[in-house]
Amino acid sequence: MAKRFSPEKYVEGILAGDRVMLSRAITLVESRLTSDQELAQEVVNRVLPHAGNSVRIGITGVPGVGKSTFIEAFGNYLIKEQGKKLAVLAIDPTSQRSGGSILGDKTRMDSLSINPQAFIRPSPAGKSLGGVSRSTRESIILCEAAGFDAIFVETVGVGQSETAVHAMVDFFLLLMLAGAGDELQGIKRGIMEMADAIVITKADGENIGKAKAARAEYQSALHLYPLGASNWSPKVSTCSALQHSGLDTIWQTIADYLELTQANGFFKKKRHDQNLQWMYEAIRQGLEDNFYAHEQVKQQMPVIAAEVKEGKKSAFAAATELLKLV
Amino acid sequence: MAKRFSPEKYVEGILAGDRVMLSRAITLVESRLTSDQELAQEVVNRVLPHAGNSVRIGITGVPGVGKSTFIEAFGNYLIKEQGKKLAVLAIDPTSQRSGGSILGDKTRMDSLSINPQAFIRPSPAGKSLGGVSRSTRESIILCEAAGFDAIFVETVGVGQSETAVHAMVDFFLLLMLAGAGDELQGIKRGIMEMADAIVITKADGENIGKAKAARAEYQSALHLYPLGASNWSPKVSTCSALQHSGLDTIWQTIADYLELTQANGFFKKKRHDQNLQWMYEAIRQGLEDNFYAHEQVKQQMPVIAAEVKEGKKSAFAAATELLKLV
Repeated sequence: MAKRFSPEKYVEGILAGDRVMLSRAITLVESRLTSDQELAQEVVNRVLPHAGNSVRIGITGVPGVGKSTFIEAFGNYLIKEQGKKLAVLAIDPTSQRSGGSILGDKTRMDSLSINPQAFIRPSPAGKSLGGVSRSTRESIILCEAAGFDAIFVETVGVGQSETAVHAMVDFFLLLMLAGAGDELQGIKRGIMEMADAIVITKADGENIGKAKAARAEYQSALHLYPLGASNWSPKVSTCSALQHSGLDTIWQTIADYLELTQANGFFKKKRHDQNLQWMYEAIRQGLEDNFYAHEQVKQQMPVIAAEVKEGKKSAFAAATELLKLV
Repeated sequence: MAKRFSPEKYVEGILAGDRVMLSRAITLVESRLTSDQELAQEVVNRVLPHAGNSVRIGITGVPGVGKSTFIEAFGNYLIKEQGKKLAVLAIDPTSQRSGGSILGDKTRMDSLSINPQAFIRPSPAGKSLGGVSRSTRESIILCEAAGFDAIFVETVGVGQSETAVHAMVDFFLLLMLAGAGDELQGIKRGIMEMADAIVITKADGENIGKAKAARAEYQSALHLYPLGASNWSPKVSTCSALQHSGLDTIWQTIADYLELTQANGFFKKKRHDQNLQWMYEAIRQGLEDNFYAHEQVKQQMPVIAAEVKEGKKSAFAAATELLKLV
């Protein structure tokens, strides 16, 4: 087991921007040991007053869309052109099954991973979505306290993790490939609806025409949705990570979004709502963890579940019976 | 308060197809009184062996799509042409806010509501989604036990209730209006993805051409999705409730679906999975109800929630603190 420090030591290190201490604190946050979790919570709570000063950007897209190339190009742009300090976090509980398409392979982001203004943290594979969501959200707080003012939360646009990411970021960016009618293949439609911006990637060489056509198509598709509470109208643009084109437009879109939502109060309200949402989610998770770990429940569950499954006992009667055990 | 009977009396009445007793049992299921709920669960559990022999059809669509007219026409068709006994249930926790667009106004289904082969039950307005879902699901069981072999579960296609309905039916039918590019207005895209069939309504008079065009458009849009575990490829058709056209095609689609999924085992598997899903959901609901009703939690919650909201306390630290109170 890795060395543990006092809460003070972690807090001090993080606030000083010590990347090693930041890394170790994130490891704590990811740990399932009760003692680690208690320590982690103390650290997170102590740095909390120093967190929040960043723009949190969710980035998603199906495998093959060029996500890591995009993140590398856009991340370097933010650092060099906008003077940002960037942390990249991943949320992908399915990476084990899907073959580790996310940050597991750090070498995919060569130049970013060695940039002192960037901090890249892959997500541990094989953890539950709830666990990854929780640790990612707390990692955002730690990174912000360490001075990172742009946070990317990366996810694969094929599962349920997008909803979790959407619930922890200010701005949700969907990467799409131009193609002939099959753009939607593999992407859940609900994800498109969450997007504050869609970026058509690989808009270079022979692909430029197709990318522009896709851009127009998505822009008109997005117009079908009514504006949300943010009053923001989602934008579609193209970019080439290869040629570093379109990155300034994307940043301008994000800046416009921030300006609008900070002026109309939505930015603050959304963060407040997200904070509460995470508390309720953590309560639910805690209640269920306790319940399903209960000895009596563990013993009775298989029998009762089988009866319910076969329609021999009603779902609600079974739930009542099980709830009485604890 | 209305009169209560013994469990035997309810069970006997329901199994004899007594509509008044069926109605009263549903009222029990909808009641929030603990004594009523206990009685309801006993009744539901006792009739359970007699339930399940129906096709459960979810029907959704935005207000204005002609849902009640469709249900009346299709319901009468099923009764007259297919010899079905039909129960129509509604799930719409938002009806109070949206102005009661669902079954509240029974007169919308004149001929169906007086048909002895039909049983129409509006949902009580103002209840939570969880409450309505639960009572609707138990009402399905009661209706089946009373001999109804076709169950419609109606919902408004604008909120979250579709997911709940989808989790309690065999077949999910989405009603859509033909229009000029604005078909998606108001309908959540995730809902389209759940549909086993889409029906373009009001395909009559001058509207026929538009309806046919919309049909082609949706059919090609649906082809973009990969087939689900059912191996069923969703169908799109048109209908006119006014002219009673297209109803046989819709029934044929449902019959084809049933044949396919009963042969490949998906039908049974889906019902089994739904049973379990409802048990887990009921457990979650029960755990949360108990937790939030706890005196200490009720006292501390406002203070802690305010701190979390403002970012003064981490969501997870707050959850841990609150969970320790019970």
